[in-house]
Amino acid sequence: MGRGMVASVPPFAAPVDPAAAACVGTIKVLSMDAVEKAKSGHPGTPMGLADAAHVLFSDVLRHNPKDPRWLGRDRFVLSVGHASMLLYSMLHLTGYDLTIDDLKSFRQWRSKTPGHPEVGHTPGVETTTGPLGQGVGNAIGMALGAKMATARFGFPFQSTRIWCIASDGDVMEGVAMEASSIAGHLGLSNLCVLWDDNRITIEGGTELSFTEDVGARYAAMGWFVQRIDGHDHEALRGAFEAAKREATRPSFIVARTHIAHGAPHAHDTSEAHGAPLGAAEIAATKKVLGFDPEKTFEVHPLAVAHYETVRARLDVAHAEWHREYAAWREANRETAASLDAFIACELPDNLFEELLAAVPQKDDATRSLSSAVQQRVAALVPGLVGGSADLGPSTKTLIAKSESIARNSFAGRNLHFGIREHGMGAICNGLALFGGFVPYGSTFLIFSDYMRPSIRLSSLMGQRCLWIYTHDSLLLGEDGPTHQPIEQIASLRLIPGVALVRPADGLECAAAWTIALERKNAPTVFALSRQKVPAIARPQAFRRDDMLKGLYVAVEASRSPEIDVIIVASGAEVHGAIEARSLLESQGKSVRVVSALCLERFLEQSAEYRASVLPKGVRAAAFEAGRVGPWASVLGGDAILLGIDSFGASAPDTVLYKEYALDAASVAARITAAISTR
Amino acid sequence: MGRGMVASVPPFAAPVDPAAAACVGTIKVLSMDAVEKAKSGHPGTPMGLADAAHVLFSDVLRHNPKDPRWLGRDRFVLSVGHASMLLYSMLHLTGYDLTIDDLKSFRQWRSKTPGHPEVGHTPGVETTTGPLGQGVGNAIGMALGAKMATARFGFPFQSTRIWCIASDGDVMEGVAMEASSIAGHLGLSNLCVLWDDNRITIEGGTELSFTEDVGARYAAMGWFVQRIDGHDHEALRGAFEAAKREATRPSFIVARTHIAHGAPHAHDTSEAHGAPLGAAEIAATKKVLGFDPEKTFEVHPLAVAHYETVRARLDVAHAEWHREYAAWREANRETAASLDAFIACELPDNLFEELLAAVPQKDDATRSLSSAVQQRVAALVPGLVGGSADLGPSTKTLIAKSESIARNSFAGRNLHFGIREHGMGAICNGLALFGGFVPYGSTFLIFSDYMRPSIRLSSLMGQRCLWIYTHDSLLLGEDGPTHQPIEQIASLRLIPGVALVRPADGLECAAAWTIALERKNAPTVFALSRQKVPAIARPQAFRRDDMLKGLYVAVEASRSPEIDVIIVASGAEVHGAIEARSLLESQGKSVRVVSALCLERFLEQSAEYRASVLPKGVRAAAFEAGRVGPWASVLGGDAILLGIDSFGASAPDTVLYKEYALDAASVAARITAAISTR
Repeated sequence: MGRGMVASVPPFAAPVDPAAAACVGTIKVLSMDAVEKAKSGHPGTPMGLADAAHVLFSDVLRHNPKDPRWLGRDRFVLSVGHASMLLYSMLHLTGYDLTIDDLKSFRQWRSKTPGHPEVGHTPGVETTTGPLGQGVGNAIGMALGAKMATARFGFPFQSTRIWCIASDGDVMEGVAMEASSIAGHLGLSNLCVLWDDNRITIEGGTELSFTEDVGARYAAMGWFVQRIDGHDHEALRGAFEAAKREATRPSFIVARTHIAHGAPHAHDTSEAHGAPLGAAEIAATKKVLGFDPEKTFEVHPLAVAHYETVRARLDVAHAEWHREYAAWREANRETAASLDAFIACELPDNLFEELLAAVPQKDDATRSLSSAVQQRVAALVPGLVGGSADLGPSTKTLIAKSESIARNSFAGRNLHFGIREHGMGAICNGLALFGGFVPYGSTFLIFSDYMRPSIRLSSLMGQRCLWIYTHDSLLLGEDGPTHQPIEQIASLRLIPGVALVRPADGLECAAAWTIALERKNAPTVFALSRQKVPAIARPQAFRRDDMLKGLYVAVEASRSPEIDVIIVASGAEVHGAIEARSLLESQGKSVRVVSALCLERFLEQSAEYRASVLPKGVRAAAFEAGRVGPWASVLGGDAILLGIDSFGASAPDTVLYKEYALDAASVAARITAAISTR
Repeated sequence: MGRGMVASVPPFAAPVDPAAAACVGTIKVLSMDAVEKAKSGHPGTPMGLADAAHVLFSDVLRHNPKDPRWLGRDRFVLSVGHASMLLYSMLHLTGYDLTIDDLKSFRQWRSKTPGHPEVGHTPGVETTTGPLGQGVGNAIGMALGAKMATARFGFPFQSTRIWCIASDGDVMEGVAMEASSIAGHLGLSNLCVLWDDNRITIEGGTELSFTEDVGARYAAMGWFVQRIDGHDHEALRGAFEAAKREATRPSFIVARTHIAHGAPHAHDTSEAHGAPLGAAEIAATKKVLGFDPEKTFEVHPLAVAHYETVRARLDVAHAEWHREYAAWREANRETAASLDAFIACELPDNLFEELLAAVPQKDDATRSLSSAVQQRVAALVPGLVGGSADLGPSTKTLIAKSESIARNSFAGRNLHFGIREHGMGAICNGLALFGGFVPYGSTFLIFSDYMRPSIRLSSLMGQRCLWIYTHDSLLLGEDGPTHQPIEQIASLRLIPGVALVRPADGLECAAAWTIALERKNAPTVFALSRQKVPAIARPQAFRRDDMLKGLYVAVEASRSPEIDVIIVASGAEVHGAIEARSLLESQGKSVRVVSALCLERFLEQSAEYRASVLPKGVRAAAFEAGRVGPWASVLGGDAILLGIDSFGASAPDTVLYKEYALDAASVAARITAAISTR
């Protein structure tokens, strides 16, 4: 059992090699000083990891600071995002566009050095980390992406490796465990995770809550596990080299380290985790490290010289790769053209028409109609890959005529994530970050809750991930309240930058996919029905492009522009709204039905278009089989709210329609009552 | 590596003992027939688990169908909730109040046999399962509860064991992995999880996605692992007995089973997972099992006789326990009285006054003020136990003068969940379900997303769990957008049955805790500030009880009832609203500030009270540092929305106030602009 109690603290010893000592010391000094200047941050972990990062960036990582987006580069993922000063220090030392002044602006407004690393914000940062466990999942997604890209294109990606540094928290979080199980299953041998086994968490020593044998757990999940002293440079180099030699398994390095390594008093204490060390301790540490206590942000001349040498070597390797790459392109012109298309991921100009043509001419569940459209997307967008959390036959998201991804077999496009929604989310984010891929992850809508942090991060990172959720209301029926979404549609719409598409029929499925694919730097959530729906009977004059505007008039009121009420509905409820409209019209009312395919897209339209769909002063009703309160901010405070605020129940959908007053007669009656009591 | 490919299918063999064969056959028949009649459900898993359930309910489980809430009972948790017919069959056979007619109403409106088991709905069901992994976490929470209750009270709980059946999905989900790591860490030897290793998932064989060595993984996490044939009754009995003998570790039984065991064609197929077997296959299976293919819902006479014998034995054990219990009460009157108080968990009549008296008279962060109130709650409510996901020093939720829970030491009240939010959620739910405990789980508000499924289930199950989240807005500052909640407050309010309290100062912290504790059958979410806030300067005439009504007038408009605008704010933003009011009043406006401590509580108040706080026709502004759109349904469509719809940024809070227009001057200017352009 376990690793037991925290060992007694050994005396600090700097590396014997003066250059190495200068480099490691510089990383520690920069990290301490930046946190001290910002008056907030995490100094201890960068100090404990300085040795590992120095060895990794000096001798192992294939990258190029002058070409941060180099196609053939390795990826470095700092899953322990709160140790951001470690990454910023390395990026500065190795020559990325990150100056000492940038480091001095750590955690300040609009600086290039925010509290946690943010991809797209700082050159050399490959993913946004901070929420623990996500980075490990992203790294696994990148490793999977490299394997899949190698299977398709060969040379450009075959040397790519993913290096990840993880903390205690990273390996405790379920999302990392799920993703790690998949990595072991698939044998992602191009991945190496170094675990910072410092035995300190915020609440105290890990003996408080974390005594499992993490290495044995990773071995059980099919990883190649090594155990080393995380301050021993030879051991670090050896472990990284062994990871590169390992041909069938991902690597996990248990690196025993000491938080705040070298600080006389903060060493091995939980206090060193999340607060500045203070001037006195910093001065004392600088003395121990052989740095001038009077100076701040000091970069040792030997460190400058060392990393200049490293940069020169990286330049040579970079140039060498490009020579080989040019030769490969010459010899593989067709593949090279495919690669360019894959990376550019340009959409056909007639995408919408292509997808409209793929819509089956029959009534069906929107999950099935969407599936038909998805097959056409797969033909048009080679980067489309994905899978479900063991619900493929239900969510209908398998790409036909394509293989499943498996150990030693990465040429297909269908992924099997197992019953691991959160791991799926983090891995899809990693695939998107790798480049070229348009990943999708699928499950029942209710289980979007299991992966919500990854959805949020896909939006924060501006990644085109497609989150395809089916069984999108309590009308899924007998599975009951544990499986019936009520608040999920409304709450997913609240995540900044996320758009939610909820198509009402086949044509809207084509529009939904078009909207999603055209959002190149943002994720889109699909909400699809389990139950069958009819096609909307649209008038001849209907302009299909209006669907792309998010909300549009699906059925016009008989006496428009004189309108008694506008029913705004989405998905399966559009059909109930149309039926309710017929009842209300037969009672002499003039009723418009608006289909809300995508609220977020609608809010981007011109004020003129918005007013044409929802004219000011006309009473509106929001009709969705779930929480509809938030619609009031769009439809006005006198909006009639036809939704559900309680949990569902286990029963056939025909029963639930009536019991929850979602059938056309109930909807019409509720609207009539609301209008007349106004 | 792993367990490799699915083994070839061995020939089916019923138990040799005729009574055992009749019992197992009956369970299979009831499950098949109920799913067939409902035309939906999951027949294969109950059939594969019939042997294990029969042995467990015949020879192992200490319970009493006539006394389902027996204090000293074992708990049985069917984590694989979709196998609900297994549980319903066992409850029927062992004599709970569940008739054959109830089984015939499987999955129907208002039946006692919904699609997934629901606690409080069906006698004998201990927790609501279906969302995978949660049941394992609940079982671990119950085992922890039994250990903690034993440490306090001794005899009544010392024989209690928790038995759990888990599926592939259960052991793949991160929530179960996190909770299982905690169970191993704490050495919960009163827990036994049997894993249904049937090697079939919905998408196909487990070789598609799940090849790790699960047993080795559990061993690495400190569990006692056994591997058996899940259809061998002697092996099952032996493994359960060994689990009972194991004194230091939780038990994990790898039970190799076959889905749809005994069905000639469905056996070992993924098709048997989630759809009725069909009349022909059911008839064929009944023949194999020795049942009449013409009959439905047939309970074999030998099964009736067997379970009558079991019931008689359970009655004897139950009576014997009560004799000992009576003697124990006699000998331990004081402890018995404490036990009664613990179970009843009645609150003092003057709870609110007690908590008001505990409020520190100083300006501080609401996380600190709440912490002071919490200490008083801990003194008044012995069942209050909990902890954080490794953020105790930041969330300030440690109970002072109380020990940490640790292996072999369960008398304290402070739990250390490690960096495992979701496991924390499921374990707290288990503690609440065990009875007596009022559990709380704490982390930063942003990480509520990591445990959202458990929050939802605490509400669906009607459990008084307290979810205490701090760092409740982007004003936490430098940690940046990965840590800054934007949509969390609004989206937590959307979960049915959840109330969210967001106190603005110390007095409101006392009110928040009072509201939360008085919600005996529902969870409450706390949102607390990282940053310091002043106390609201309340008028002499202020009635403190108004705080308990959710929304109340914190500062009245100068010319009330003539009011130009009402600013509705919560938490730290109340103070910004009060400052903005001063600016607006100095410009001649009459402005009321309403503090929104708890919207859900307010919506339960009389129409009269609600109109007194928010009079019809008066323009209102919603002010929270996050998504405020949903307020429109409460405040009217012309509500001025002073929130944030984008992600945050890394910077000191003083900068963020201005940049996000949250400072008093900006708020006043935005209100002025909105009023004047109306």
